[in-house]
Amino acid sequence: MDQRSPKAHISCAIESAKALLGERLSTSASVRQHHGKDLTWNDGTAPDAVAFVASTDEVQKLVQICAAEKCPLIAYGAGTSLEGHFAATYGGICVDLSGMNEILEVNAADMDARVQAGVTRKQLNAALRDQGLMFPIDPGADATIGGMASTRASGTNAVRYGTMRENVMGLTVVMADGRVIKTGTRARKSSAGYDLTRLFVGAEGTLGIITEVLVKLHGIPEAISAGICAFPSIEACCNTTIEAIQSGIPLARIELVDAEHIKAINAYSKLSMPVAQTLFVEFHGTKAGVAEQAQHFAEIALANGGGTIDFVTKEEDRLKLWQARHDAFWATAAMRAGQQEAFSTDVCVPISRLAECVVETQKDLAESEIYGPIIGHVGDGNFHVAIFCDRSNGADVLRVKALYGRLIDRALAMGGTCTGEHGIGSGKRDYLAKEHGEAVDVMRAVKLALDPFNLMNPGKNAGP
Amino acid sequence: MDQRSPKAHISCAIESAKALLGERLSTSASVRQHHGKDLTWNDGTAPDAVAFVASTDEVQKLVQICAAEKCPLIAYGAGTSLEGHFAATYGGICVDLSGMNEILEVNAADMDARVQAGVTRKQLNAALRDQGLMFPIDPGADATIGGMASTRASGTNAVRYGTMRENVMGLTVVMADGRVIKTGTRARKSSAGYDLTRLFVGAEGTLGIITEVLVKLHGIPEAISAGICAFPSIEACCNTTIEAIQSGIPLARIELVDAEHIKAINAYSKLSMPVAQTLFVEFHGTKAGVAEQAQHFAEIALANGGGTIDFVTKEEDRLKLWQARHDAFWATAAMRAGQQEAFSTDVCVPISRLAECVVETQKDLAESEIYGPIIGHVGDGNFHVAIFCDRSNGADVLRVKALYGRLIDRALAMGGTCTGEHGIGSGKRDYLAKEHGEAVDVMRAVKLALDPFNLMNPGKNAGP
Repeated sequence: MDQRSPKAHISCAIESAKALLGERLSTSASVRQHHGKDLTWNDGTAPDAVAFVASTDEVQKLVQICAAEKCPLIAYGAGTSLEGHFAATYGGICVDLSGMNEILEVNAADMDARVQAGVTRKQLNAALRDQGLMFPIDPGADATIGGMASTRASGTNAVRYGTMRENVMGLTVVMADGRVIKTGTRARKSSAGYDLTRLFVGAEGTLGIITEVLVKLHGIPEAISAGICAFPSIEACCNTTIEAIQSGIPLARIELVDAEHIKAINAYSKLSMPVAQTLFVEFHGTKAGVAEQAQHFAEIALANGGGTIDFVTKEEDRLKLWQARHDAFWATAAMRAGQQEAFSTDVCVPISRLAECVVETQKDLAESEIYGPIIGHVGDGNFHVAIFCDRSNGADVLRVKALYGRLIDRALAMGGTCTGEHGIGSGKRDYLAKEHGEAVDVMRAVKLALDPFNLMNPGKNAGP
Repeated sequence: MDQRSPKAHISCAIESAKALLGERLSTSASVRQHHGKDLTWNDGTAPDAVAFVASTDEVQKLVQICAAEKCPLIAYGAGTSLEGHFAATYGGICVDLSGMNEILEVNAADMDARVQAGVTRKQLNAALRDQGLMFPIDPGADATIGGMASTRASGTNAVRYGTMRENVMGLTVVMADGRVIKTGTRARKSSAGYDLTRLFVGAEGTLGIITEVLVKLHGIPEAISAGICAFPSIEACCNTTIEAIQSGIPLARIELVDAEHIKAINAYSKLSMPVAQTLFVEFHGTKAGVAEQAQHFAEIALANGGGTIDFVTKEEDRLKLWQARHDAFWATAAMRAGQQEAFSTDVCVPISRLAECVVETQKDLAESEIYGPIIGHVGDGNFHVAIFCDRSNGADVLRVKALYGRLIDRALAMGGTCTGEHGIGSGKRDYLAKEHGEAVDVMRAVKLALDPFNLMNPGKNAGP
């Protein structure tokens, strides 16, 4: 029997990986640090080495090396995930796929594209623009497509275009034993076999390493119209959204920005929006179509006490409008600069419960004396709280963590989920069990069937 | 060690099941026959008994009995699946869920409903109509929602509303060991854990028995417009479809009906449609919206050589129009009544390859002297061939089976799938391996992790 320690095994794996990758295998402290800690309050752990891979073939060889040595492997894209997804909890080699950034094919007639996992969404969109096509999933950060697939990312456009779940058609995956498989086909639908594509989407690298992604594309709409509407209450925002969806308006984006955020954005971006619970909306379609949608929406908003909306259609004006929305996080961070850090978290509930969930959370924040502006992808019932906390103050941290737990319990009690788009990573593992009960054992069984030695991003998601 | 034969084990399981279910456990020959053979050329095998279950709790108890005796279990809904899905290949007990037909909740504000697996799609739609809601997935037959989930069904509306993959939000599943799990939540999206919902959707009862389904609903559109357009060629039909999709027209239905079918429908339904390659289309939206869509579509069709289209908007006229489409299969069957039977199969390819695939298949049919009208959900690249065959004539059967194999090989070579919506069942298992290669081993590993004794619908899909 092999008596070497896990550490010795990892060292051997690193040595073999060095022989495979040369300079592209780094053990420098700064590179390792950078690859082990995200921007959140989750603990970071640096990997023992970082492999900058260039091809599926190289990933396969690296996995074979690590399988032989039982060395953990952590897939890494742009490092923008938010729940400690890439902390090297059990050490091992971080597989940085950002260098695999080739757009392999774009099929305009079929509106699909095959890309290497390291292609970023902005890179892909820049390459598609001339063909009138777009990849609409927008989690905010310029994440890689592989990372977005692994975390089941979504964002502001999901209400219209779906999440990564709906927009990934197929994958190339290197399994824990080094096998390379392809899932899905270029057909738009299939009833052939188990849906492995969607099993890997959202698995956070715990079932295999995604090296290529086949994605659906969408046509850039002929016309776009966007607007901002102030409301007297969160309820009014949510009811407007529900009625708009029920009446069949194909909302492209509908974002709730609470009054706290508006205050912060006004200060940060030198704007003078009315300080109120606010909806940012956008419509996609033909010229006549978006005009009709906007008018219909304005009527529903008015009936719910909303203010008048100045719809903008020029790209320049729309970008300005959405810049204010995108600045929200930094605007609130600036409000507390030097005192507290913000930790963004998210939950998602049935839309009929959203107003209640947001209002109760606001009340809880006020009673707990915690600054926590709320912003939401309200069409999906998904919202984020930027919870501010002084990490050097133990009592503050405890108070914040308690509030965080109540937030998730509230969402679960309403039939929702502990995370709509941030994922489980290492940060929300306790809540995964709370949410899914015995189904987590089924997830665990799948994990162990595909990765019996727990080498793929161990300690994350449903894995051990 | 237990030395009894598998048959003796099954007998013991039936005895215990009889004690559990009384009269609702049937071993009558006619009931067993009815539950073992579908309407296709796939071999049928009667189960040893049929259990008419009434609740999840009863299914759980039945599964526990069968787990103890290692007795196979085959889930059964309306019996409308098309690839030998419910043949009792290894004997065992058929679990008929059609009696579990309660609509458990309808949440109008959230546009979702939770139903027992035996609820049929027509039953659900009848219950939803008054609330202005609908469940649009329409595979033709009045299948059960549980069966539709298990086979990943779709149909004519999928181009707009997606398939069961996109419209199932959560499931209650009885696992092979009798555990009952719930997957998904009522939140519209989630990044919490592995996507078990989509793992069970399309698994054809091989990973567990679905007893409840949480489905997405959609608003009944304010206006609907439908039309029929004759084209000079299959290519013209496909190019029109591609251009319509690319230009952003939200097609609700777009069906290719080939000239052979038109001939048959004209005879069967006493109509006088021009005998040509034809598209049936439908648009959903506001009144102004569907008018705009219809006009835009008509322009694209005209540019591709299509004839003029008389759009109809009244329900009565639309129903008449779609009746002709729905009669297609029976119309062609009538053409050969008494001589040959029709066996419907389907493949799905990237839409850019659809014209080529259909034309080559028509040529192959002509050269093979096989009557095989083609009909397609052309917006998804999915088409059906009704292959006619005299089953009593061995040479005829061989010729048909060879053509069938070439049809699938052609679809796979074009980046497509061996089945867009009919499924694998027992009929397409060889092609599953051809399509997915080593990924089938990964499916198999998942199957064995969740059902180590292969009790859940053995011999189907990716299972052993």
